[in-house]
Amino acid sequence: MGMADTRFETRRRKLASELAAKRIDDMLVTHILHVRYLSGFTGSNGALLVSKDRTAKIATDGRYTTQLAAEVPDIPATITRQLTSELLGGVVEGRRVGFEADYVSVAQLDKLKAALPDGVTLVPVTGVIEGIRLTKDNLERTRLTEAAELSVQALTELIEAGGVRAGRTERDIAADLEHRMRLLGAERPSFDSIVASGPNSAMPHHGAGERVLVDGDLVTIDFGMHRLGFNSDMTRTFAIGEPDAFLREIYEVTLAAQLAGVKAATPGTELVDVDAAAREVIVEAGYGDYFVHSTGHGIGLEVHEAPSASQTGTGKLEEHMTLTIEPGIYVPGRGGVRIEDTLLITSSAPRVITQYPKELIVL
Amino acid sequence: MGMADTRFETRRRKLASELAAKRIDDMLVTHILHVRYLSGFTGSNGALLVSKDRTAKIATDGRYTTQLAAEVPDIPATITRQLTSELLGGVVEGRRVGFEADYVSVAQLDKLKAALPDGVTLVPVTGVIEGIRLTKDNLERTRLTEAAELSVQALTELIEAGGVRAGRTERDIAADLEHRMRLLGAERPSFDSIVASGPNSAMPHHGAGERVLVDGDLVTIDFGMHRLGFNSDMTRTFAIGEPDAFLREIYEVTLAAQLAGVKAATPGTELVDVDAAAREVIVEAGYGDYFVHSTGHGIGLEVHEAPSASQTGTGKLEEHMTLTIEPGIYVPGRGGVRIEDTLLITSSAPRVITQYPKELIVL
Repeated sequence: MGMADTRFETRRRKLASELAAKRIDDMLVTHILHVRYLSGFTGSNGALLVSKDRTAKIATDGRYTTQLAAEVPDIPATITRQLTSELLGGVVEGRRVGFEADYVSVAQLDKLKAALPDGVTLVPVTGVIEGIRLTKDNLERTRLTEAAELSVQALTELIEAGGVRAGRTERDIAADLEHRMRLLGAERPSFDSIVASGPNSAMPHHGAGERVLVDGDLVTIDFGMHRLGFNSDMTRTFAIGEPDAFLREIYEVTLAAQLAGVKAATPGTELVDVDAAAREVIVEAGYGDYFVHSTGHGIGLEVHEAPSASQTGTGKLEEHMTLTIEPGIYVPGRGGVRIEDTLLITSSAPRVITQYPKELIVL
Repeated sequence: MGMADTRFETRRRKLASELAAKRIDDMLVTHILHVRYLSGFTGSNGALLVSKDRTAKIATDGRYTTQLAAEVPDIPATITRQLTSELLGGVVEGRRVGFEADYVSVAQLDKLKAALPDGVTLVPVTGVIEGIRLTKDNLERTRLTEAAELSVQALTELIEAGGVRAGRTERDIAADLEHRMRLLGAERPSFDSIVASGPNSAMPHHGAGERVLVDGDLVTIDFGMHRLGFNSDMTRTFAIGEPDAFLREIYEVTLAAQLAGVKAATPGTELVDVDAAAREVIVEAGYGDYFVHSTGHGIGLEVHEAPSASQTGTGKLEEHMTLTIEPGIYVPGRGGVRIEDTLLITSSAPRVITQYPKELIVL
């Protein structure tokens, strides 16, 4: 536990510095992902108060008494049903208390106000903890890499077992892949798996349905696992039997775009330029109208988080950020392709943690 | 689609009546479960404006143009990235617009205010759509029954295949059961499956870990599936080899409590009395301190929803509500038992939709 404590304390220290800079005395953390991020507590109900002097208090309910003591030995804890009232009740007059305005509902805010001691001010705060989450520490990079590598292993097993073949439904393939991930240690899929075959592959957000794969299909498999708090996300498109020349062409264009996006993902690069690097390849090939989404997103505690590599993305990549690179071409009635890797941004070339072949595999 | 349209329109008509009674002219529905409930739209991004005159407008983004047209043929639609601004922009001066205060964050409310035309008032609303959801219509009862029966089928297959046995880990059993549910049509589990064996069975919220089942264990399996928008939830406790007399005793007490709870679940009964019916059996047997949670909850679009059969539950059961009955006894260091069914409340005895044996099965 010693190692873990230090890491969570480091994150809380970063938050305390941000609070001091914003003239906020205490931050009430209620978003459960953020409670976990800042304390290590993995229960489903908890709240945390972090103060600018780097002290903290935590509260949870009676179901988690033992678990909290084991997971969070270094923060004074209260067991109560009224988490936020308890934490706010101890704040002394004159202090400004930040709350998470992106996660606290209008109805919850009324309850916070009712529990507020006299002379204490509530201040809406957005983006501060998300800002700290943007760059990943050692443990996060390890966990993300493990989830990515286990996902690759599940896909490898699926393909080697002949699990993706004509005659099988999209749903059965998704179930098979998810089962393999589960046996490898996933707690659940990161999101509903996509297995989009034939004409369905032209729909970027198709799920996994009853369609039976047939020769000549492209099939796009977009999937990930949630494990120990972190997520993975990757996509490969396979051919079932020999694809026609058109499908092969859009595959090659998408692959060239994906490689260009990966190459561009270096620290200091504007996120719009990462998007442009991939997008230009597709536009120049004449398929720009068929690339209908952004190039990529960060991944960590959430499967989609900042930064965003899109045409409206703001800011630059930094070392230890994460980013997916996932261009696609979707031609209604014909078929579609998407190829996605997850990258860790390093001081030089990005590290691709979803290492799996990208040349077209014909099954 | 005709059938479906009528059903969604009926739900919107109920909401319109509630709005008129509360002097609200229009209701901005942003909680995506509620958008689906009131319109049939299954996409991940959408908003709905329902007016007291029973008209409605819907908005989604460009990814869902085709899907929205297919799923919601009866509501005028706008394709936009600014869902709520678009819907609010068309509201005329003098009207009072309700918003979902339990789901709109403080930061989102600022955006709604910024998009509000002059002379339009925002009014926080809580519980109205939840109130309509309390009683389930024909389609909901059908979907809930299907999900429950498919879950029973998955458990039956698991047990018949010898999937729950000494030597197997909790995780592998969970993965096996989830895979069977997926193949039977589940889109995902309703929640992280619980497979709690031996001493772990004494922890009501244990997940499914690396512990290997051994002879003499009780193992509690609490699981459900999400399918077509609806959820299932059931629990059975099995014995691995012959259990000792103590474990057999707490099993029999729990079963008697569960049967008493089911028997009490009739329309007109106070929810506290349903809880008491099950609880008294456990208290009288001397295990009251070991039944550390409430007796049951409603289930529908969410796996846990109103009503609540607990010591602090308010209100009475009504026909077409749902309720789980899930008493448990958890003795630290010794083991635990939970037995859970999902019920549809009818005009007389409840209908148990999770039909699976409840006498102790020794595997």
